[in-house]
Amino acid sequence: MGETLVKHITHDEIMNMEKQERVHFSNSIGGFKSVVLIGTQNTKSQTNLAIVDSILHIGSNPPLFGMVFRPGVLERHTLENILETGLYTINHISEKIHKQAHQTSARYDRDCSEFDETGLTPEFKNNFFAPFVKESNIQLSMEFKEKITLSINNTLLIIGEVKDVYLPENCLQKDGFLDIEKAESITCSGLDSYHKTTQISRLSYAKPDKTITSLI
Amino acid sequence: MGETLVKHITHDEIMNMEKQERVHFSNSIGGFKSVVLIGTQNTKSQTNLAIVDSILHIGSNPPLFGMVFRPGVLERHTLENILETGLYTINHISEKIHKQAHQTSARYDRDCSEFDETGLTPEFKNNFFAPFVKESNIQLSMEFKEKITLSINNTLLIIGEVKDVYLPENCLQKDGFLDIEKAESITCSGLDSYHKTTQISRLSYAKPDKTITSLI
Repeated sequence: MGETLVKHITHDEIMNMEKQERVHFSNSIGGFKSVVLIGTQNTKSQTNLAIVDSILHIGSNPPLFGMVFRPGVLERHTLENILETGLYTINHISEKIHKQAHQTSARYDRDCSEFDETGLTPEFKNNFFAPFVKESNIQLSMEFKEKITLSINNTLLIIGEVKDVYLPENCLQKDGFLDIEKAESITCSGLDSYHKTTQISRLSYAKPDKTITSLI
Repeated sequence: MGETLVKHITHDEIMNMEKQERVHFSNSIGGFKSVVLIGTQNTKSQTNLAIVDSILHIGSNPPLFGMVFRPGVLERHTLENILETGLYTINHISEKIHKQAHQTSARYDRDCSEFDETGLTPEFKNNFFAPFVKESNIQLSMEFKEKITLSINNTLLIIGEVKDVYLPENCLQKDGFLDIEKAESITCSGLDSYHKTTQISRLSYAKPDKTITSLI
């Protein structure tokens, strides 16, 4: 970083920011995030696709992931479809489709499919009800498990269990690690900034009095 | 990606993986994650530092972040300190300190400070009780708000409110976006893989029938 001034922003200054400024700021300060597309379909065969940056790993046995839905949004087709059908897909985003992925955040009418609007391709396979994104290199089918209201701000935490996973064979390593960088997955920061990655290292399991070594 | 075979891994195959393999796999498939150091101190002035990869943005007004603690870990000094004192810090990790950050995950005794063990420097400022990491370019002071047990697997979700933020002045943009890449923050995947980033673009607010443009 070289020489740079440290700026101190107080809680009062954050609370006095103009709303959009505070939203940008708050979304940036927690670090990089997972960014994926959630595919759903309602019982009338209307598909829906939504970009989500709040994927949270909750457990491995079975594999569980949470995601957050903000309160107060009037029409939340993805959430409604998940609660109605119990099924959804998680699809990683590559640089090639990141603009289309971002475009899914526009407020389309209920009878529009973000697949049609963005040119991404719904893919149905192995009798799973919800659509995958064909252009996505890593795809997960998910089963809804639990909805938790976070009373502090009425945000909803939706928890689901991973059923099947589709991935590029050459990205899966022997110890179970999936090289998502090799699979071209990207990350995001803030509301609208997309980033590709360069692996620094994989590090050995840490133990007291043992020096960390690089696994690659 | 060019030509590569798609591998289909079923839910049964995931559940039949050897435990460590499933942990690596489950931690990889959700995408890139925020990776930060949590600084705490107990009432006996014993400091503690722990690497966490489960930061979740929950709200902006006020700014709230959650993080997950796994069940069944016998001694969880960071969690105990947060519940005892109500205060902690979130510190971003740069490439320069990523090995020391990873080393904090070793199981040190209660009377060891991971600051001493790893050579990272505790920084106390503005009368905040919990220590920051001096080597970290972005630092947040946090106040504990709520502990939620996720009954599905007894994981704990700890929610806190952002109080003050310290950041490099030249990384804060006019609209509130903080350029964490410029601040050298890194991201992680799986349990042990660290990655630096290259910004692809910031994209304009998405609206139906409007083409996405790049803001930079």
